[in-house]
Amino acid sequence: MTSPRRAPGGFPVVGVIGGGQLSRMFQPPAVRLSITLSVLAESAQSPAALVVPSSLVGRHTDVEAVRAFARECDVVTFDHDQVPAEVLSALEADGVVLHPSPAALVSARDRPAMRRRLTDMGVAWLPAGQRADVVRELTVLVARSPSGQGSAWPVVETVRTGRLRTQVLAPAPGLDPGLAAMATAAALRIAGALGVTGVLAVEMFEVRDPRTGDPSYLVSQLAMRPHDGGLWSTDGAVTSQFEQHLRAVLDLPLGDPSPLARWTVTGIVRGGYHSDLYPTYRHLMARDPALKIHLYGKGVRPGRTIGHVNVSGSDLADLRARASHACDYLQGVINQ
Amino acid sequence: MTSPRRAPGGFPVVGVIGGGQLSRMFQPPAVRLSITLSVLAESAQSPAALVVPSSLVGRHTDVEAVRAFARECDVVTFDHDQVPAEVLSALEADGVVLHPSPAALVSARDRPAMRRRLTDMGVAWLPAGQRADVVRELTVLVARSPSGQGSAWPVVETVRTGRLRTQVLAPAPGLDPGLAAMATAAALRIAGALGVTGVLAVEMFEVRDPRTGDPSYLVSQLAMRPHDGGLWSTDGAVTSQFEQHLRAVLDLPLGDPSPLARWTVTGIVRGGYHSDLYPTYRHLMARDPALKIHLYGKGVRPGRTIGHVNVSGSDLADLRARASHACDYLQGVINQ
Repeated sequence: MTSPRRAPGGFPVVGVIGGGQLSRMFQPPAVRLSITLSVLAESAQSPAALVVPSSLVGRHTDVEAVRAFARECDVVTFDHDQVPAEVLSALEADGVVLHPSPAALVSARDRPAMRRRLTDMGVAWLPAGQRADVVRELTVLVARSPSGQGSAWPVVETVRTGRLRTQVLAPAPGLDPGLAAMATAAALRIAGALGVTGVLAVEMFEVRDPRTGDPSYLVSQLAMRPHDGGLWSTDGAVTSQFEQHLRAVLDLPLGDPSPLARWTVTGIVRGGYHSDLYPTYRHLMARDPALKIHLYGKGVRPGRTIGHVNVSGSDLADLRARASHACDYLQGVINQ
Repeated sequence: MTSPRRAPGGFPVVGVIGGGQLSRMFQPPAVRLSITLSVLAESAQSPAALVVPSSLVGRHTDVEAVRAFARECDVVTFDHDQVPAEVLSALEADGVVLHPSPAALVSARDRPAMRRRLTDMGVAWLPAGQRADVVRELTVLVARSPSGQGSAWPVVETVRTGRLRTQVLAPAPGLDPGLAAMATAAALRIAGALGVTGVLAVEMFEVRDPRTGDPSYLVSQLAMRPHDGGLWSTDGAVTSQFEQHLRAVLDLPLGDPSPLARWTVTGIVRGGYHSDLYPTYRHLMARDPALKIHLYGKGVRPGRTIGHVNVSGSDLADLRARASHACDYLQGVINQ
């Protein structure tokens, strides 16, 4: 393999295992931060391999490929949760700096283990099959660095309309401030207790106490990497989840997570039945110049996640309508 | 040479002649826009070659190298003004789509030709040696697409304190609104009359009529590419100059140039006497988490431009002090 070309000045190389869209989205902040990325990608056409010079084609399940890749990096992180425990152990034995650590990752991959840890911390979780009472889906996104610094973005709401339409509203509209503070504190507590380094997404449901009507939350899932619930931050926050993850895994000081606008809405773009996206993309830009369209360089297949759009402003209903239109148009559900 | 790896969906390849820092800064918006960049760089360690997979090492003066490079691109643009006229002619003869065109570039490279064209348009320019009356240095940054769409960022002021300290204040503080409108209209008129495609920076001086005291301007220089006067836009505007230039040369609809904050201040970072920048960079991030530090992956030499910082907010004096501190610290003028 060829070694990553390092920038001068002592700037480090961050290795990302996985060449998908999350890995791809590390490249813009890495360029700006002068951090060299190196990616272990599934293929030369993986979204990240298209944009990162130091990309190596290899499987995350191939222990020797992963070890050779990691030897050229100062820190290794992940764009998915699928690296086998035996590969992680081999890297640990080699002395590779892994963020998040294998010990922390257990709680993202093993749901019974996660639930035991949450119970120990006094954090309530959603039992299987108990979806009654559920008001809505929230995500708390936080970041934590190895030296223990933490930061949190505003709590967001994910709205799913059918299988193919997903929007993220940042911040979650009308969220009780007490609940927001409680959920954020819980996410930071989870990050600290599990020793998470990098971005932690705590997926949860807002529920109401059936007797008092008081709002509360139940945790459903943890992800220790950038998350769809943080895609808004690339255009809507001073520091995006991708930049913050890089800062965190390098133990750099964390950036300011403040929002840049009252609202940012993310619409997830799915593949439809036309594969020649570029003309649609041009028309959409003409119609709504303030829309930020992010496509991942993936081939179109019906239902496949191929990109997202972000739009920021002060009128939430208007932003939601514009994000919906953009996603429907890119998917081919509507033709203008 | 290897062909650039194209993303699927009909998305184009933009070739950039020149692998310097401006070329490097095209990569973050290109990733997001799904545009593949291909760079003809001076060396494998050029700032852009470190971050763009499709980078070819070659000289912009080598006509055969440039022709071979251009054959793999849908559009070719530039990160500097130094490509010889005979190379441009050869590309034109090959049918390469060049933005800006060689005809437009003449006015950026040949000062007497520029002055004749400005005189024809009724735009006043600064005669050599006439720096009295000059109030301050302004830059009007506009973009124009081949189909004639234009857009303009707010007029900025460049403040130079000695040879090594440069700040850009966006927008120019206290600028007379009539003068701002007049200067912006002139820049858009110049772009149209010269057939500029992409970003056009019109460098000018604010002057006062010695009799009436009325503010006016005199043009000093044109640059048909992203410009230091637009570095603020990467963090301070909805659409940066780098994204806008890519949109323009592809004849995509132009993005919204609106500022995201009341003020954004750019400080240019020069090389000092310490080359191991990473520890300084870490400390600076800790001190001012909202600061955006952009380093170009260049080796440090005293006085060489190696990066810039941006900081946005509502208190201009505070922002200027923070940008100054950051530049001095990175340069080693101060040590804390």
